[in-house]
Amino acid sequence: MTNGARRRMGVEERREQLIAVALGLFSHRAPEEVSIDEIAEAAGISRPLVYHYFPGKQSLYEAALRRAADELAARFVEPHEGPLGARLLRVMERFFDFVDEHGPGFSALMRGGPSIGAMEGVGSGRTSAMIDGVRQAAYEQILSHLGVEEPAPRMELVVRSWISLAETTALIWLDSRAIARGELERQLVHDFAALAAVSAAYDAEMAAVLGRVLADEPSDGPFGDLLTRLMALAPQPG
Amino acid sequence: MTNGARRRMGVEERREQLIAVALGLFSHRAPEEVSIDEIAEAAGISRPLVYHYFPGKQSLYEAALRRAADELAARFVEPHEGPLGARLLRVMERFFDFVDEHGPGFSALMRGGPSIGAMEGVGSGRTSAMIDGVRQAAYEQILSHLGVEEPAPRMELVVRSWISLAETTALIWLDSRAIARGELERQLVHDFAALAAVSAAYDAEMAAVLGRVLADEPSDGPFGDLLTRLMALAPQPG
Repeated sequence: MTNGARRRMGVEERREQLIAVALGLFSHRAPEEVSIDEIAEAAGISRPLVYHYFPGKQSLYEAALRRAADELAARFVEPHEGPLGARLLRVMERFFDFVDEHGPGFSALMRGGPSIGAMEGVGSGRTSAMIDGVRQAAYEQILSHLGVEEPAPRMELVVRSWISLAETTALIWLDSRAIARGELERQLVHDFAALAAVSAAYDAEMAAVLGRVLADEPSDGPFGDLLTRLMALAPQPG
Repeated sequence: MTNGARRRMGVEERREQLIAVALGLFSHRAPEEVSIDEIAEAAGISRPLVYHYFPGKQSLYEAALRRAADELAARFVEPHEGPLGARLLRVMERFFDFVDEHGPGFSALMRGGPSIGAMEGVGSGRTSAMIDGVRQAAYEQILSHLGVEEPAPRMELVVRSWISLAETTALIWLDSRAIARGELERQLVHDFAALAAVSAAYDAEMAAVLGRVLADEPSDGPFGDLLTRLMALAPQPG
């Protein structure tokens, strides 16, 4: 248990260090391109010692992706204060911070980790479950900001669709970074408004929720002008 | 080569039959829940004979998903005639036909086949590449309908985002079928308009393409009223 703990790190401390080192390396290269040797070297310990803390490559990689997934889910937590547009914009800023920091690690996570699965002949079912957990956490956060506890099917569809749109937008951004991320953060808030407005144009419940949200929206907020115009589409609730 | 070909089927014919039988079973249950024994029984041949045509479960499953992927990509092919809104609506109708027919097989395909990977310890990299191929084919089809050969980053983003939105919407629909598919087909056409309009509000090229498309759009088409109102958002090109 202590044979290689050169810096007298405890087991948990050493595991945390290895996870942090792995995530650092995954922010530059895809997880399947990073070897245990590299992780060991970056952590300043021997390869066998890495295996002492994580029984296999797959278990270290999964622990790292689990950590990343938890961190990503936390980015969607936002105080229930102020207008919705500004809240969503802050969430998108933190989301893109994460995407920016983690790069290839984010891609691996969001693509369900097939490359991880291919790496050692282990299926990517667990990575897939992790990312579904992040999506669910994000979904519940957004619903809570909309003040909705039991979403009707169209409400669920709008929120889940928008989360998927944020993922896709981030993955495309990572490929080329051809558009400034600040523009995309704002655009995604607008996309939320646009998807909600399309839905509201056909559904009284969506229209009512949007109407309620908009009552708190300042004209100079991220929804502002755009959402005001889009709302001309919605039928008047009640 | 002929020892079990009871109905005198040729090799290719028998392979086609097995693929069709597998896809039929995958339309009711997830691929990993369907055994080779069931496929053999449904095809009226012995289990060893199945292995004669496909060296392993994975190879038959991959051939079936490959067939489904090709078929799905073909649903996005649409003649270049008439207004864009009507074209997109026909594409969405065929897309939902496919989703409806294939059910769990569609989910497995779109989720990158992690469950397939988990099934036999083979990674889902190939399934993932298949679905990326479908996405690329759909992307190129939509671009061609927009009359765009070299898309700027925002154009690419809108089209790829919308394809991802169609996938997500279809997967959510499959889970509960809580909203009539006809409504979702129409809503997705509206979503395309909404996403394009948000982008056009910030980008002159997007605005120009939308303006061109809209010139051909009848007021009673699927874009119709909705898109007319959304276009009030876009800056005037030129």
